[in-house]
Amino acid sequence: MKFTCSQHTLSKALNTVSKAVSAKTTIPVLKGILIKATEDGTLILSASDLELSIEKEIDVNVESGGSIVVFAKLFSDIIRKLPNEEILIEEKANCTLLIKTSSSEFTIVGADPEEFPDIEDLEDDSNLISFNKEVFKNMIAKTSFSASIDESKGIIVGVLLEVNENGVSMVALDGFRMAIAREEMASEESGESMKIVIPAKILNEVSKIISESISESEEEDGTISIAINEKKAIILIDSTKVVVRLLEGEFIKYRDIIPSDSSTTLQVGRTALQSGIERASLLAKEGKNNLIKLTIDGNLITITSKSEEGNVKEEIIMEKTGHDLEIGFNSKYVLDVLKAVDDDEIKMEFNTSTTPCLVKPLEGRSFEYLILPVRITSTY
Amino acid sequence: MKFTCSQHTLSKALNTVSKAVSAKTTIPVLKGILIKATEDGTLILSASDLELSIEKEIDVNVESGGSIVVFAKLFSDIIRKLPNEEILIEEKANCTLLIKTSSSEFTIVGADPEEFPDIEDLEDDSNLISFNKEVFKNMIAKTSFSASIDESKGIIVGVLLEVNENGVSMVALDGFRMAIAREEMASEESGESMKIVIPAKILNEVSKIISESISESEEEDGTISIAINEKKAIILIDSTKVVVRLLEGEFIKYRDIIPSDSSTTLQVGRTALQSGIERASLLAKEGKNNLIKLTIDGNLITITSKSEEGNVKEEIIMEKTGHDLEIGFNSKYVLDVLKAVDDDEIKMEFNTSTTPCLVKPLEGRSFEYLILPVRITSTY
Repeated sequence: MKFTCSQHTLSKALNTVSKAVSAKTTIPVLKGILIKATEDGTLILSASDLELSIEKEIDVNVESGGSIVVFAKLFSDIIRKLPNEEILIEEKANCTLLIKTSSSEFTIVGADPEEFPDIEDLEDDSNLISFNKEVFKNMIAKTSFSASIDESKGIIVGVLLEVNENGVSMVALDGFRMAIAREEMASEESGESMKIVIPAKILNEVSKIISESISESEEEDGTISIAINEKKAIILIDSTKVVVRLLEGEFIKYRDIIPSDSSTTLQVGRTALQSGIERASLLAKEGKNNLIKLTIDGNLITITSKSEEGNVKEEIIMEKTGHDLEIGFNSKYVLDVLKAVDDDEIKMEFNTSTTPCLVKPLEGRSFEYLILPVRITSTY
Repeated sequence: MKFTCSQHTLSKALNTVSKAVSAKTTIPVLKGILIKATEDGTLILSASDLELSIEKEIDVNVESGGSIVVFAKLFSDIIRKLPNEEILIEEKANCTLLIKTSSSEFTIVGADPEEFPDIEDLEDDSNLISFNKEVFKNMIAKTSFSASIDESKGIIVGVLLEVNENGVSMVALDGFRMAIAREEMASEESGESMKIVIPAKILNEVSKIISESISESEEEDGTISIAINEKKAIILIDSTKVVVRLLEGEFIKYRDIIPSDSSTTLQVGRTALQSGIERASLLAKEGKNNLIKLTIDGNLITITSKSEEGNVKEEIIMEKTGHDLEIGFNSKYVLDVLKAVDDDEIKMEFNTSTTPCLVKPLEGRSFEYLILPVRITSTY
């Protein structure tokens, strides 16, 4: 194997595939990146931690084809620190690799490419569904934070991605809150459907790759495509292929949890509410459940909290229909929602002080958040 | 005590004095900030960890004077998170403090100001020496990183600040390297002299306060002043007074260590050398001493390093007078020096492979760095 390529292009590609390298793996070859040069002038970089595999193709000048596995961290560090000029990379005897520029010469130890796991290829008859990059990325940002981070909780560490005749939706929940994001489908093809659950932390890596591809691409309305291959999803993002192991089993029947009506509805400024809750949280660290109390009375939300260090009262003006109410929350869950939303104004729907609060946009149903209240004692 | 003040001004002042609050102190009152409002419209904020004390004055609208100690972290967090508007602060019964804006109302628990340690005042006959802010800050940046970080090493955890008829100098050393920065004095007053040793980590905090004062001030050539009061230095930085406990004892006779001549002198581009050493260091992690070898031959410096993961060779063009030489270094010590210097080109002076290397500017003596070599074995 012998090829030359631009430092900048190779360094960016390594940054992308490195997201699939596990630092903690006990399988030595998985600390590596497989680099494969083909005679037609393509370099294929691959990494996998078995849950997530990433393969990226870049154009290089190949003198002779071949492949080798290199330690991901060392190889990426070397390439990143080289000046932005043409790099010569050549396989030498005993599985070593020469990396050469005008003033630098590295020889690093590689590993046998035979040991590297195969990464799924798209099958010829695969049914690809396309999504707008920005839309897909925003839906991840609106939902993935609500998934459980407790690996023992099974399927709820994942985000449900559902495509049907109504459009596309993502859903995540952890037992204390639930997030739903919905969009019309970008494409008009009918009959497309999909229902898969992707681990939230892997979906966040996919989101980063999409962000990188958006910033690199000149196209305004780029798309990604997803195909399902048995228990894996193959996600195509420009020249990057991401293979994700799906979570198996039935997702929670989340539609049953959403309350169908409410006795109190507020319309409130999002940033004012967020600032007020952030300040009130300063005195809500006690006992780790970040308890704040919302008193909904007339056209004011009064947020109160107290600890041994003092107490706080914040007032926010809003519009209300329905009853007055007192309700307690873990401030973190409310803040997570307010930070995930862009809208200037939001709608909050309540029933009683022990039933969940629903957060929605003023119009439409592009997002819905359900937040469980915390019971407040009479002495609070 | 009752006063109103701008959120922005108070928050910045708290940020400054908080640098003297120790998170680890066992004396509860030292987790606090003393706030004292005087009838003439001044708010004095003070904090101290006994090693370092900071006192800052700001203008506020005082309705009634008084003083209280507040928990530094909570009070700073509250003020920082309030909107930039006028804040009312009022002492209430039982040592509590009310903090009020148009929509927020905090009541926090304070502590008795009587328990707070006194902070030295400048004496009437104090001899103040002035330094240009930028110059003083740059001298700290050029030297303090070379001081020992091992608290058991005594005086070498400090930076020597010396003022005499030749100007001002700062010196720091840790047994492996030494840094010297020298400047002409800004003021022309004759007969000024000073020789003190300030703990490096405290000098770094002083540097941050100077940076803040530079960014806040419209003055181009601002100065700070230092007076010595027994075992303390009192440093005046605009409206901030910093009191520092000095290190006692005799500083190392550093002038004796500087070699007076050299058998090899190089002139080399600083950033090229830095990049080359940074890359070579990628393979120099073995055994924690970051060993790199410099081979000085003709008009080339060849930097080599190796580990189990591979080996590297970097070539840098330079101008040389004197003998060729092979010498080993801990790359960290060389990189620290190259990062601290701004000059495009530097001079490096060597004698043998077991004697220190001296790094200097091409002209003048505004800095001198001495770096001890690492012995390289014949098999390297």
